[in-house]
Amino acid sequence: MKDITVLILAGGDCSRVWPLEEKHFLQFCGRPLISYPISQLIRHGLTNFVIVTNKNNNEMFERLTATFPGASFVLTQQGQKPGMAQAVISAKEHITGKKLLVIGPSDIYEDILLVDFKKMLAKNPEGLLAGTAVSGYFPGAYLSLDRGMVVKIVEKPDPDKTPSQIINFVFDYFRNSNSLLESFDKIKTDKDDLYERAIDYLLGKGMEFRFLPYKGYWGFLKYPWDVLSLSAYFLGKIEGKNIGKAEIAESAVISDRVYIGDGVKIMENVKITGPSYIGRGTIIGDNCVIRESHIGDNCVVGYTSEIARSHIGNRCWFHHNYIGDSVLADNVSLGAGAVTANFRLDEQPVSSVVNNKKIKTGKTKLGMIAGENVRIGVNAAIMPGVKIGCNSYVGSGVVLDKDLPAGKFCSLVSNSYQVAENKIFK
Amino acid sequence: MKDITVLILAGGDCSRVWPLEEKHFLQFCGRPLISYPISQLIRHGLTNFVIVTNKNNNEMFERLTATFPGASFVLTQQGQKPGMAQAVISAKEHITGKKLLVIGPSDIYEDILLVDFKKMLAKNPEGLLAGTAVSGYFPGAYLSLDRGMVVKIVEKPDPDKTPSQIINFVFDYFRNSNSLLESFDKIKTDKDDLYERAIDYLLGKGMEFRFLPYKGYWGFLKYPWDVLSLSAYFLGKIEGKNIGKAEIAESAVISDRVYIGDGVKIMENVKITGPSYIGRGTIIGDNCVIRESHIGDNCVVGYTSEIARSHIGNRCWFHHNYIGDSVLADNVSLGAGAVTANFRLDEQPVSSVVNNKKIKTGKTKLGMIAGENVRIGVNAAIMPGVKIGCNSYVGSGVVLDKDLPAGKFCSLVSNSYQVAENKIFK
Amino acid sequence: MKDITVLILAGGDCSRVWPLEEKHFLQFCGRPLISYPISQLIRHGLTNFVIVTNKNNNEMFERLTATFPGASFVLTQQGQKPGMAQAVISAKEHITGKKLLVIGPSDIYEDILLVDFKKMLAKNPEGLLAGTAVSGYFPGAYLSLDRGMVVKIVEKPDPDKTPSQIINFVFDYFRNSNSLLESFDKIKTDKDDLYERAIDYLLGKGMEFRFLPYKGYWGFLKYPWDVLSLSAYFLGKIEGKNIGKAEIAESAVISDRVYIGDGVKIMENVKITGPSYIGRGTIIGDNCVIRESHIGDNCVVGYTSEIARSHIGNRCWFHHNYIGDSVLADNVSLGAGAVTANFRLDEQPVSSVVNNKKIKTGKTKLGMIAGENVRIGVNAAIMPGVKIGCNSYVGSGVVLDKDLPAGKFCSLVSNSYQVAENKIFK
Repeated sequence: MKDITVLILAGGDCSRVWPLEEKHFLQFCGRPLISYPISQLIRHGLTNFVIVTNKNNNEMFERLTATFPGASFVLTQQGQKPGMAQAVISAKEHITGKKLLVIGPSDIYEDILLVDFKKMLAKNPEGLLAGTAVSGYFPGAYLSLDRGMVVKIVEKPDPDKTPSQIINFVFDYFRNSNSLLESFDKIKTDKDDLYERAIDYLLGKGMEFRFLPYKGYWGFLKYPWDVLSLSAYFLGKIEGKNIGKAEIAESAVISDRVYIGDGVKIMENVKITGPSYIGRGTIIGDNCVIRESHIGDNCVVGYTSEIARSHIGNRCWFHHNYIGDSVLADNVSLGAGAVTANFRLDEQPVSSVVNNKKIKTGKTKLGMIAGENVRIGVNAAIMPGVKIGCNSYVGSGVVLDKDLPAGKFCSLVSNSYQVAENKIFK
Repeated sequence: MKDITVLILAGGDCSRVWPLEEKHFLQFCGRPLISYPISQLIRHGLTNFVIVTNKNNNEMFERLTATFPGASFVLTQQGQKPGMAQAVISAKEHITGKKLLVIGPSDIYEDILLVDFKKMLAKNPEGLLAGTAVSGYFPGAYLSLDRGMVVKIVEKPDPDKTPSQIINFVFDYFRNSNSLLESFDKIKTDKDDLYERAIDYLLGKGMEFRFLPYKGYWGFLKYPWDVLSLSAYFLGKIEGKNIGKAEIAESAVISDRVYIGDGVKIMENVKITGPSYIGRGTIIGDNCVIRESHIGDNCVVGYTSEIARSHIGNRCWFHHNYIGDSVLADNVSLGAGAVTANFRLDEQPVSSVVNNKKIKTGKTKLGMIAGENVRIGVNAAIMPGVKIGCNSYVGSGVVLDKDLPAGKFCSLVSNSYQVAENKIFK
Repeated sequence: MKDITVLILAGGDCSRVWPLEEKHFLQFCGRPLISYPISQLIRHGLTNFVIVTNKNNNEMFERLTATFPGASFVLTQQGQKPGMAQAVISAKEHITGKKLLVIGPSDIYEDILLVDFKKMLAKNPEGLLAGTAVSGYFPGAYLSLDRGMVVKIVEKPDPDKTPSQIINFVFDYFRNSNSLLESFDKIKTDKDDLYERAIDYLLGKGMEFRFLPYKGYWGFLKYPWDVLSLSAYFLGKIEGKNIGKAEIAESAVISDRVYIGDGVKIMENVKITGPSYIGRGTIIGDNCVIRESHIGDNCVVGYTSEIARSHIGNRCWFHHNYIGDSVLADNVSLGAGAVTANFRLDEQPVSSVVNNKKIKTGKTKLGMIAGENVRIGVNAAIMPGVKIGCNSYVGSGVVLDKDLPAGKFCSLVSNSYQVAENKIFK
C-alpha cells in the first residue's frame, strides 16, 4: 500500500452545507471529520497523501496534517475552476505516473472497505471503483456492473433512468494516474461531470475497472442535516461508560454508552441516555435531559433543557430549551423558553431550501440548523428544517418559519401588542 | 325489579358537548361513561333494557351491550324528531303496557338511589320522580312537592320563577307506560318540553307521583367541561395503590389513590398525586408531574409536562407542556412549550360559547377543550375555556383566544416578524 | 452618643424607584429596609431620632417606630417644598441647638462606620462628613480633602469636573445644628443643592469639617434595580442553615447559607443555592431551582420555575417561569411559560427610562421590575430592564419591550393569527 498516493479532494466549496462552514473540520467527538478517514487510511498502511485544499481551509489542513507524524502530506490549492476533475488536475505534478487512490473527504466508511481494497489489489487491477447499493434515488454517480467489472458510469442520471442501484462513492483506484489525467483532455463537457465522463471514456477504451463492493455504513456530508446521521454513527462507536475527571451529582442518571470529558459538571436530576458525548468543560444544569446527542466543549446546558438526537458544537448556551434533531455550530445560544419544532403538525417530511432550490430532506423529524454565533431570544420558536446563518439573531417571541441569512437581526413587528386601560383597577 | 323495563334515552344529538363527540362513549377509567349506569342498574336487579340510539351511536351500543351477558337489550333508533318524548315514542312497541323506568344516560348517581327506589317500589306507586336539591339555577325541570308527592313539574322556568330548589334528573318510573304514551297525544307544544308537560298533565289528571329524594353525587354531561366533574368523581373511587405491570423509576414519587395500568412506563423524577388514573401503555416522561388527573391509554407525556385536574383521552402526546383543568379527546398532541391558560388575569369566571350562545361556566379555573386529532404547535397558548374542533391545528406561537371550528388550520400572520441587518456584526 | 439627635430624611418622593413604591419600607429578609439603619444606630448608642416623613409614609413610620421601645422618635412631615434642606427645615423645632447627625434613610453601611464615628467624636469636631471612594462617576456630592479635613463639597459636578473620587453619602454631623440652619438663609439657589451649598458656605466661613473615611459596603436605593445589590448584601449576611418549621421533601437539595421561614413547603427535586431567603408560608413546587434569591412570605413558586439572583416580594405566584435578575413587588403573578429576558442578545449593558430620561444601569444582566399586583399571562416575555407599573396586566404571548405604566392592560393585537381550512383533513 505504501506505493499508493492518496488524493483527497477537499478544495470544493461548501455552499450546500450552509449555514455550516468548512465541513471537513466540523468536530465529532472532539476531532474534525476529516481526521477520521485520514487516520483510517494510515492505519491500513496508506501513508502518502496529496490534499487538494482551497484558500479557506488550506491553513487548517496544514495544522491538522502536522498531527499525523507517521505520514507524508502534500497540500496544493485547487485552481479557480470547480469540480473534481479540476481538483485532480490541480495536483497533477504530485501524482503523475503514480498509483492513485482518489477519495472524497467527507465520506465515512467502515474498515472492511480498506480490507477488501487490499485484497483486491493483490490482483493488480488497472482500476478499481467502490460502490454501494442505495434504496431510493441518490444524486450521484451510478455504476453498471457485469461479472464484477464496471461497464459504465453515469453521473446524476434522471431518477427514472438509473442503470442500477449501485452508487459510486469516491474511492477510486488507478494503477497509473496518467490514464485518468490524459483522458481529461479527450472530453468536452460544460457540466460538472468531467471526472466521471473521463472514467467512462476509459471504460469505453477497454480499461478494466474492478468493482469494489461495500455493504457497511456509508456516511457523507452533502447537506447540513447529514451531520445528524454522521453524528449518530460516531456516537454509535461509544461503548461502556467513559467518564473523565467530572463532577456528577448523585441524583444524576447516566446510562451506558456515554462519554463524559474532563472538567464536565453534571448537576442534580440530570439524565443522559446513550449513545451521547459530552465534551470537555461542559456544564449540564439541573433537571436537564440529554438523549442520544453530541455536545461539544465548554457548553452550558442550563436548567431544564432537553437535547435529543442533536449535534451541538462548542461554547453553546442553553436555558430551559428543547433542542430536537438539530445541528448547531459553535457559540450558539438560546434564551429561556426558546424551542425547536422538529416535527410538522401534518407529520409530513421536512423540505429545505439549498442554493435557492427546495429539496426534500426525507426526514419527518428535523429541527433547526444554526451557524456560528447565532443568538435566539426567549420564547422564540424555530420551525422544522429552518436554517440560520452565522452571526444572526432571532428576537424574543419570533416564530421563525423561513431560513435567515447570515448577519441579520429578525424581531417581532413593533406593533405586535396594544395597550389599554385596565378596567379591573379603575 | 325484573319486570321493569329500563328505557335509556341516548338518541339525542350531542351538540352541546362540542367539540367532544358521542358523549355516552367518552372513556372514564377505561370504560365508556354509559357502561357505569348500565352496570349499576344490572347490579341492582334491573336487567331489561330498551335503548333509544341514533344513527351515529347505534353500532357502538351494539358492541357495548354485547359485553353485558346477564341482561337483555333492545336497541331502537330515534326518529327524525328530537326530544325526550319523541325518544320514548320511538321505543313504543318495546315498552307498551310495561312497568317503565326512564333514565337519562349521562346521569351518574350513587347506589343509594337504587336502594331507595327499590324500597319505594314496595308501595306499588303509580309513578315516581327522582329529584335532588340544587344551589343556584340549573336549566332543567323543577318539581313542586307536597308531603312526599310531586304536585307540579316545570321545564326550565325563568331563573326567578323556580317553584322550588328541587331538580328532576331523569330517573322516572311509571307503573304502566301507557299513561305516559297516551298523554303525549293530549299536549300541544312547539317547545322541547313535551315529556315534562305530559307528566304535568298526568299530575293534573290526578295520577300519583311519589317523590324519590336523592342527596348523593349527581353527575351529568351537559357541557364539555362537565367531564371534569365526572372525571373527579370517578377518580375519587380509586383507593390505595393499583399498580399493574409497569416500569417505574426508583426516583418517581407516587402517592396513594393512583391507578397505573399495565405496560405503563414512569421515568425519573416523576410525581403523581392522587386521585389519578394512568391508562395502559402510557409513558410518563422524566420530571413530569401529574396531579389529580385522568390520562387514557397509550399516551406519551413527554419531559417536564405538568397535567393538573384534567381529563385526557387515549393516544395523546405532550412535550414540555402545562395542561390545567382541561379536557382532551383522543389523539391530541401539543408541541414543546405549548400551554393552556386556565385562569383569567382578572380572576373572573370563564364564559364559553355553546351553540352560538355565550354561557357562564361558573368556573374560575378552566383550561381548553380539544376534540379528536387536534394538533397544537410549539409555544402556542390556549386561553381559558377555548374549544378546538376535531382535526384542527393550532400553529406554533399562536395565542388562541376564540373557539376554533373543526377542520381548521390557524397560524400566526405571515408578517409577524421583520428582518434587518445585524449591526453588531457589521 | 446619647446627646446626639439623629435626623432621618425620609420625606422625599420615590419617583426614581418607580414602579416600586415607599422604598424605605421594601422588605429585605422579613424587615423593612429602614429598620436596618435604625437598629444599627440604636445598637451603637444613638437613641434620639427625628424622622422627616411625607403624607404617604408617615403612618408606616408610626407603626414601625413603635417596634423600637429603647429609643425616642419624633415624626414630622416634610413641607410642600422638596429637597434635603427643606427636610431639615421641616424639623427645625426638634433639632434647634442640638448635636445633629443627618442621615439618608436608604443608605446601608457596615458597623465600622459607627465605630469610627464614635472615635472621631472624641475630638469634639465642629462638623464631620462621611465619604467613600467610588470608581466611575456617581451623580452625588463630591468632597475635596486636605489632610483629613473637608475643604469643599460640590453637588453633582459635571462628570469631567469631579474634584476627587470621594463621594459624600449622607452621614453628616454638626456639633450645633444652628450652624446648618442659619446658613440656609444665606444661600440663594434655584437648584436642588441648598443643603450641600450650605455646607460649602460653612466650609468657606472656616467651620471645620473632619472627613470620616469609609471603605466598607455602601448600599443605596436610588433606582429600582439597586434593590438587587441591597438584596445581595442582606442575603450575604445569612450563614449556615436556618430552617424553620418547614416541610421539606427528601429529594430537595438545599445548600449552606439558606434561610427558610416557618410554614414553608419544599417539594420534590427542588434545589436552593445560597445565599437565599425563603419567607414564611412560601411553597416551592416540584423541580424548582432558587439561586441566590430573596423570596418573600406566602409566595407559591410553582412547578419547574427557576428564580435566579432576584428579589421577590410577598404573595407572588409563579408557574413554570424563569425569573432572572429581577425585582418584583408584592402580589405579582406569572402564568405558565412566561419568562424574563435578563441578557441582551448583543450582550450590551441594559438601559432604562427613569422620569422620562434614558439612563444607563451599568448592568449586562437585568430582568424586569414589576410593581404591586402585576399579572403576566402565559408564554409572555419581558425584555431586559423593562418596568411594569402597579395593577397592570401583560397578556398571554406578549413580548413586552417597553415600560408599561400603572393600571394598563396590554395584549396581543387581535389579528395576530389567521384561520384557514386544514387541507390535511379535507
